[in-house]
Amino acid sequence: MQQQKTKTHWRVRLHEIIYEADTPSGKFFDVVLLITILFSIVLVMLESINSFDLKYHKFIYISEWVITILFTIEYITRIITVKKPWKYIKSFYGVIDLLSTIPMYLSFIFAGTNMLIALRALRLLRVFRILKLARYLGASQHLSKALKASKAKISVFLFAVMIACIIFGTLMYMVEGEENGFTNIPKSVYWCIVTLTTVGFGDIAPVTPLGQFIAAVIMIMGYGIIAVPTGIVTAEYTSATKKDDSKVLEPVEIDMNTQSCQNCNAEKHKDDANYCYQCGNNLHYD
Amino acid sequence: MQQQKTKTHWRVRLHEIIYEADTPSGKFFDVVLLITILFSIVLVMLESINSFDLKYHKFIYISEWVITILFTIEYITRIITVKKPWKYIKSFYGVIDLLSTIPMYLSFIFAGTNMLIALRALRLLRVFRILKLARYLGASQHLSKALKASKAKISVFLFAVMIACIIFGTLMYMVEGEENGFTNIPKSVYWCIVTLTTVGFGDIAPVTPLGQFIAAVIMIMGYGIIAVPTGIVTAEYTSATKKDDSKVLEPVEIDMNTQSCQNCNAEKHKDDANYCYQCGNNLHYD
Amino acid sequence: MQQQKTKTHWRVRLHEIIYEADTPSGKFFDVVLLITILFSIVLVMLESINSFDLKYHKFIYISEWVITILFTIEYITRIITVKKPWKYIKSFYGVIDLLSTIPMYLSFIFAGTNMLIALRALRLLRVFRILKLARYLGASQHLSKALKASKAKISVFLFAVMIACIIFGTLMYMVEGEENGFTNIPKSVYWCIVTLTTVGFGDIAPVTPLGQFIAAVIMIMGYGIIAVPTGIVTAEYTSATKKDDSKVLEPVEIDMNTQSCQNCNAEKHKDDANYCYQCGNNLHYD
Amino acid sequence: MQQQKTKTHWRVRLHEIIYEADTPSGKFFDVVLLITILFSIVLVMLESINSFDLKYHKFIYISEWVITILFTIEYITRIITVKKPWKYIKSFYGVIDLLSTIPMYLSFIFAGTNMLIALRALRLLRVFRILKLARYLGASQHLSKALKASKAKISVFLFAVMIACIIFGTLMYMVEGEENGFTNIPKSVYWCIVTLTTVGFGDIAPVTPLGQFIAAVIMIMGYGIIAVPTGIVTAEYTSATKKDDSKVLEPVEIDMNTQSCQNCNAEKHKDDANYCYQCGNNLHYD
Repeated sequence: MQQQKTKTHWRVRLHEIIYEADTPSGKFFDVVLLITILFSIVLVMLESINSFDLKYHKFIYISEWVITILFTIEYITRIITVKKPWKYIKSFYGVIDLLSTIPMYLSFIFAGTNMLIALRALRLLRVFRILKLARYLGASQHLSKALKASKAKISVFLFAVMIACIIFGTLMYMVEGEENGFTNIPKSVYWCIVTLTTVGFGDIAPVTPLGQFIAAVIMIMGYGIIAVPTGIVTAEYTSATKKDDSKVLEPVEIDMNTQSCQNCNAEKHKDDANYCYQCGNNLHYD
Repeated sequence: MQQQKTKTHWRVRLHEIIYEADTPSGKFFDVVLLITILFSIVLVMLESINSFDLKYHKFIYISEWVITILFTIEYITRIITVKKPWKYIKSFYGVIDLLSTIPMYLSFIFAGTNMLIALRALRLLRVFRILKLARYLGASQHLSKALKASKAKISVFLFAVMIACIIFGTLMYMVEGEENGFTNIPKSVYWCIVTLTTVGFGDIAPVTPLGQFIAAVIMIMGYGIIAVPTGIVTAEYTSATKKDDSKVLEPVEIDMNTQSCQNCNAEKHKDDANYCYQCGNNLHYD
Repeated sequence: MQQQKTKTHWRVRLHEIIYEADTPSGKFFDVVLLITILFSIVLVMLESINSFDLKYHKFIYISEWVITILFTIEYITRIITVKKPWKYIKSFYGVIDLLSTIPMYLSFIFAGTNMLIALRALRLLRVFRILKLARYLGASQHLSKALKASKAKISVFLFAVMIACIIFGTLMYMVEGEENGFTNIPKSVYWCIVTLTTVGFGDIAPVTPLGQFIAAVIMIMGYGIIAVPTGIVTAEYTSATKKDDSKVLEPVEIDMNTQSCQNCNAEKHKDDANYCYQCGNNLHYD
Repeated sequence: MQQQKTKTHWRVRLHEIIYEADTPSGKFFDVVLLITILFSIVLVMLESINSFDLKYHKFIYISEWVITILFTIEYITRIITVKKPWKYIKSFYGVIDLLSTIPMYLSFIFAGTNMLIALRALRLLRVFRILKLARYLGASQHLSKALKASKAKISVFLFAVMIACIIFGTLMYMVEGEENGFTNIPKSVYWCIVTLTTVGFGDIAPVTPLGQFIAAVIMIMGYGIIAVPTGIVTAEYTSATKKDDSKVLEPVEIDMNTQSCQNCNAEKHKDDANYCYQCGNNLHYD
């Protein structure tokens, strides 16, 4: 055991730097990573602006490759330093990390795949880890708990809304007809969704008096309907907050750190934890 | 009694297949039915797209008739296998089933009635029965209870909104006039509803400074007013959930099945029920 | 006293018919009145449609005068039969009744004043009296209590929103300039209100990248801000409902009738009341 | 001490007039100040309207200078009469007061800076002080407490929304392309924000069927998502109100006055306070 520990020492050090944000070097790595991600997203955005692309095409192209190589190195290191690589590869962040890395390689084979780089935006979610804000984590836990509890109810609701949109869409297609922009039923259903959600682009708008009357009915319906998901989420969120209040007196007071177990990748250990609360792995090596 | 039971045995079997989703054959029937409904809705949508209709007109026409015949058979079987046919025919699903079946027959007499097929979308509501999700049924029960309790209040509210729309619509007609798109009062009222519900198509928009000022007042009003139905539904939904919590400890735990009584069509029997809780009819035959 | 009663008997009878909806004749009067109001509003709407006005101008003109004369008679009778005419004349309904009657007379002097007829819509609020729906009255009482309690908070909120609109409007005027539709600051502020309330007509829309960025900030602000009035109304409405629940066990059970006291016009007497709860006047004459 | 008091007597008097709204002269000063601010904002608005500026350019120019000089005198007096000038200068109102004063001076050096005058709108927030409405102050305290408590949660939420907008924006850019108005990714992201917040200008709208399908998904998402901040604010506001209710029985009953301590600028003293509750400075001089 002692021997194995010294042997894997560099892997342990790297794991600490890459996966955690508690040590100075770990924090430094994460900040650099986030800046690189942000820079790469800005690059893709600028590349899509023609006037900018014409001027700085070479600079963008080279930067893109530098970032891709950096991400490749990072991805491989992540696999090496973790004890159960497959678990990481199949995890949410594992898939995102892979998809953020491969676009430039794929661009040799398929054109346009470098747009996948936009998925790098999802990597920015790591920012919450760096900020070491248990407060933010707690906040999002309440949110996700409320959203999870609302899921079934909101599904029922959205299903009913979809059926209403199909029926009203077909109705509007019959009333307004192709000459007023309602060229076919799918487009009519699209218009109905645009109206019911109170977005109202105005690219298609009813012209006939009857069509405008039906539109008014749909809008007032949408006005009343918008209250339903809000009501559900509010009620669930209130109850999620209350349950939390009654269980733990001061949930924010518990200091969680950003370490992840090298064995099972479990996160949200208490700050003074010595062993992983999921697999019992020792969290400290030195 | 024994004799009558054997005589109606095939009706009982058919009833179980058509009206219930607990047996393998019943579930299979319902899944096939839903796929047919979905397919028929997609057909109507595609038919409305000119380029698609030109190419595949014959295919769509034949499929439409096949589906219509299948629905006709299903509708007749439903009437035969139920003990009180009139109760089914006059029920919500009975009317929808009829309206979903007749459009193609009516198209011999009237043009354009095959658009009624869109009403088939309502048949999709049966999906909740198949999924056997007591959880979803419970969810929609909370919802409908909250909406029922809010009905009177929201009616008062919508009535007041309608009156405001008539008054502001007339005002805008006088201020903006016909040259700015407010061609008559009904159109002006339509614009007012579009604005108050925050849809805002932009097909009609105020041009004069005074008109824009009144529009701003309407919008800020609408902004405040949207809070009212949301507040009502939220309050009712919260209290509906609370009352339910205090009555039954774990409402989801009660296993309801999807059987409907052959005698009175009552649904939501407990999974281990032997007799209908409404008419006392024996639910099991074999 | 006995003598005076017989003398004013016809006034008492008329008061009962006009102001109350409990007796058959009173209910009949109110229903006829509401139908007349509705008919007169529809008339004004149709008059504004050119093609309709050309055909039926004479019919509309005569109907308008018939209705005006009927309303004049009703207004005078209301004044005669009430004990304190000035109280009625200065009341909300008194003013509305007058304004609904005079437009045709004023049209001799000023052109276009017959548009005031739209104010007749406000008379429709009497519908709640006829329907004798204590339930609806209770509902609107909860609503108005919640809205009254929210008034101060929503004023503070709207005041802050207005200041934000002035600042952002000026900013957009400077960024976008006159060539992109932001021709002056008031128009810019109007656009800002359109955007913040999520109406979004699209008659004016930012074109420059910087303008679009500021617009995005305003929209996300508006998205968060819309939560505030909703939150306030919901919280107040919930507490208004709760207080009511704890005071009266079944507030709907109390039967209020639609009588109004002949002496002081007070409404909402209990169904078995003999004397006015405000001035002690005897409510029954026969 | 006695000597110093008489020496600074005029400063004390001025401080009372400028910083407080309890004495008649103090109230008069504040009302005049607010009217001047309002007048100056209206002036800038009118100046931006070309037809108006051509006619009254001279009048506007002179008025602008008169107001600027008045504000300069006021600003200097504020600095002189306060005991700790730097604390005022660096405070929120101090910065706003400076920025409201300098634009005309800056216009000698830079063109267009007189637009900064719009910032004067922020000075209008002082209106709450004049109205001496402890009720309003209490209302905004509840609001700001609820908003402060929601901050962390709404940040998490907005961060997730931003990431979704970047990903969906890039997707729409790829699907719709430059020929349909989605000329580059930043513009696409802007469109996505416009759609998700249900503003829906319609200056850019999807044309291809696939683009309209994705737009429908974004809209329904936005419809569900709008429930989240509303739910959070409502829950926090309800709990903020409840906590307040349990602590103080009648929070509105406490009379706060509008005095600010001459020493430390602390506000919201109780009406009968003799010494500043923050620095112990004597609040009364005479």
